[in-house]
Amino acid sequence: MGAAAVITYDEALRRVLAGVDQLPATDIDLGHADGAVLAEAVTAREAVPPFDASAMDGYAVRSADLHTLPVQLDVVAVSSAGHPSPRSIGAGQAARILTGAATVQGADCVVRVEDTDGGAQVVEIRRGSAAGANIRRAGEGARPGDVLISAGTVLNPAHLGIAAGTGLATLRCVTAPRVAVVATGDELAGPEVQLQPGQIHESNGVVISRLAARMGCAVTTTRAGDDVDSLRRTLLDLATIHDVVITTGGVSMGGEYDAMRAAVTGWPVEFWKVAIAPAKPFAFGHLGSGADGAVLFGLPGNPVAAVVAFELFVRPAVRKLQGVTPHVTPTRSGIAGASLPDRGDERICFLRVRRDERGHWVSTGPGGTHLLGGIAEAQALAVIRPGQPTIGPGDEVELLPLWL
Amino acid sequence: MGAAAVITYDEALRRVLAGVDQLPATDIDLGHADGAVLAEAVTAREAVPPFDASAMDGYAVRSADLHTLPVQLDVVAVSSAGHPSPRSIGAGQAARILTGAATVQGADCVVRVEDTDGGAQVVEIRRGSAAGANIRRAGEGARPGDVLISAGTVLNPAHLGIAAGTGLATLRCVTAPRVAVVATGDELAGPEVQLQPGQIHESNGVVISRLAARMGCAVTTTRAGDDVDSLRRTLLDLATIHDVVITTGGVSMGGEYDAMRAAVTGWPVEFWKVAIAPAKPFAFGHLGSGADGAVLFGLPGNPVAAVVAFELFVRPAVRKLQGVTPHVTPTRSGIAGASLPDRGDERICFLRVRRDERGHWVSTGPGGTHLLGGIAEAQALAVIRPGQPTIGPGDEVELLPLWL
Repeated sequence: MGAAAVITYDEALRRVLAGVDQLPATDIDLGHADGAVLAEAVTAREAVPPFDASAMDGYAVRSADLHTLPVQLDVVAVSSAGHPSPRSIGAGQAARILTGAATVQGADCVVRVEDTDGGAQVVEIRRGSAAGANIRRAGEGARPGDVLISAGTVLNPAHLGIAAGTGLATLRCVTAPRVAVVATGDELAGPEVQLQPGQIHESNGVVISRLAARMGCAVTTTRAGDDVDSLRRTLLDLATIHDVVITTGGVSMGGEYDAMRAAVTGWPVEFWKVAIAPAKPFAFGHLGSGADGAVLFGLPGNPVAAVVAFELFVRPAVRKLQGVTPHVTPTRSGIAGASLPDRGDERICFLRVRRDERGHWVSTGPGGTHLLGGIAEAQALAVIRPGQPTIGPGDEVELLPLWL
Repeated sequence: MGAAAVITYDEALRRVLAGVDQLPATDIDLGHADGAVLAEAVTAREAVPPFDASAMDGYAVRSADLHTLPVQLDVVAVSSAGHPSPRSIGAGQAARILTGAATVQGADCVVRVEDTDGGAQVVEIRRGSAAGANIRRAGEGARPGDVLISAGTVLNPAHLGIAAGTGLATLRCVTAPRVAVVATGDELAGPEVQLQPGQIHESNGVVISRLAARMGCAVTTTRAGDDVDSLRRTLLDLATIHDVVITTGGVSMGGEYDAMRAAVTGWPVEFWKVAIAPAKPFAFGHLGSGADGAVLFGLPGNPVAAVVAFELFVRPAVRKLQGVTPHVTPTRSGIAGASLPDRGDERICFLRVRRDERGHWVSTGPGGTHLLGGIAEAQALAVIRPGQPTIGPGDEVELLPLWL
């Protein structure tokens, strides 16, 4: 197998997105749907709000009685939330009413309690209200059948409240992508063990698993050595019960020491050098002999490069599996608080940056990409494109947010 | 009981924060610590990285052999990740070395494979390397005992990777605040039932529960009617097994219809009208007869006001329980994309806003604060202070981010 082809970020992303399709839908309990992706629009089952209700604590009255102020009205009824008044009011009468309570037959507006003497039997109205004042109309938020939440929405707590408010206990969501994360490499040791020479404690699997879990994926995490046959079996086993397999490590060399390349022989997997920094080496394809196998993402073993590759390729692909558009997280714009170094080569550079006290963006420091400290502290990746002028303090900078 | 006192936002926040203290620490499995708050600093148990390692795929050589180029060297050893070379190299010799592999005795630098002919028995070095080149030094990230993550950090995936990388399987974190959310009101019905006149489906409990869960709280959610004795018993029961009880509804009136006020009689609970909009009515205190009872937050029943009150009071209090500083989420600055209405009164106004196509901030629309649609779509609350000039397009606007 020859050296990996160098391709642009845009081309790599295009091929990745072409290789994944939206997953089917399933019903999820409202209590477990935070962060899930809606597969079918939620429509209003009743009017929102379901009835005309008072927007204030006060008195339901007839506006015709308020021409001369102050005026005293007989309080003949009460409407509180959950207890609508069975009684209507007539001329010269009022009903005590509370916020959210149904309006009272015969009344056409609500006077706030602050604009009265608060009387219990007789109330003195001191400030007028026009017909319709302080009343929330049934259906002013939505009529039955109106779309309340669109398909493809990543649900937040307020969306769940909207769904609950229209009486739903479950939501039709996209099935959570089943993701296996496999950290590969003979040098990897688990926690709480004494390291042997040349060993390191595994960390990539921990980081990448949590990034996938934060996107709403159902994640399993494992570790594999560099024995080719064993790695191949592990990948194939995981492929049978996962939609996506993400490996870290073993994609850089293309030589006899590259376990990943050997393990996927004969399967439709491409090895690229993408023109980005960090995270140049990357593998993408499907596990097994057909293109219908689980999707494989081969991330580099360098910890920072693995995070960057996840953000640039795995996140958009998962968003496509989930039916979220746009698949690619839009970049934002910020102001640099200091010069941001560029590499001066043909690669798009993703620099770890954080917000300073003034809200401007600065590098998290010169730490190598094998160290997670700088990216843990970062709140975004600054996107620095080849050929663009060097970014100095006060200049605009393109940002890809982290830890979404 | 008289009308509630009107107090400023700053004063209300000061009293809330004075009423809560940091919770004790506990050990949490690394796999469950995402979003938890570190109670004790994580220090390096080994050097990071633990040994001198190659930063590149290439050849470990002696820089003294590279004075005249090209030069041919005998390849006498291999060091791959997890398999350090037991053999050292001498003059005129090289070792194949892979990224992350331990350096080789006798070599003082690494030449990238791209700068060689890639030979297996004999390698031709075409470009030189100085002593130390392409080597990551043991301890260059941290030495044993160095602080890797500070106490009070809200852990993100990279922090978990740092902890895993130093061999930890558990982290000493602040105990997750045990939070009970109680939606109160006789008008509240559950999901999947036919509404009776004056009823609505409960939604506040759903929204507030998820906001607390997203902060790392252990949340239970329940519903209570307006019967005072029953509500009082429910609150007291919940107080025995929770650190925080959050209610929604029943705090606005101060009159005979206000179940919450009656239910907490004799307990140290204050009812305020805070000079903010929305979310003016608010209750804070402790449940039971001593100040050591569970903390009570009485949020307004208006759905948008409940979210705003959560963000302004509950979030900072939970951050103090968790030992996170600053307790209050710092506001950010953005550019308004359209005029943002102000109320023109003495209240700080929190307006639901979203980012438009150009990244500027616009109102999510005129929907009433009883409707969740506008806040579901919002990405921040614009903070509009009394007396400040009206915000027009292009003006700077202060923002409190939502859905953190």
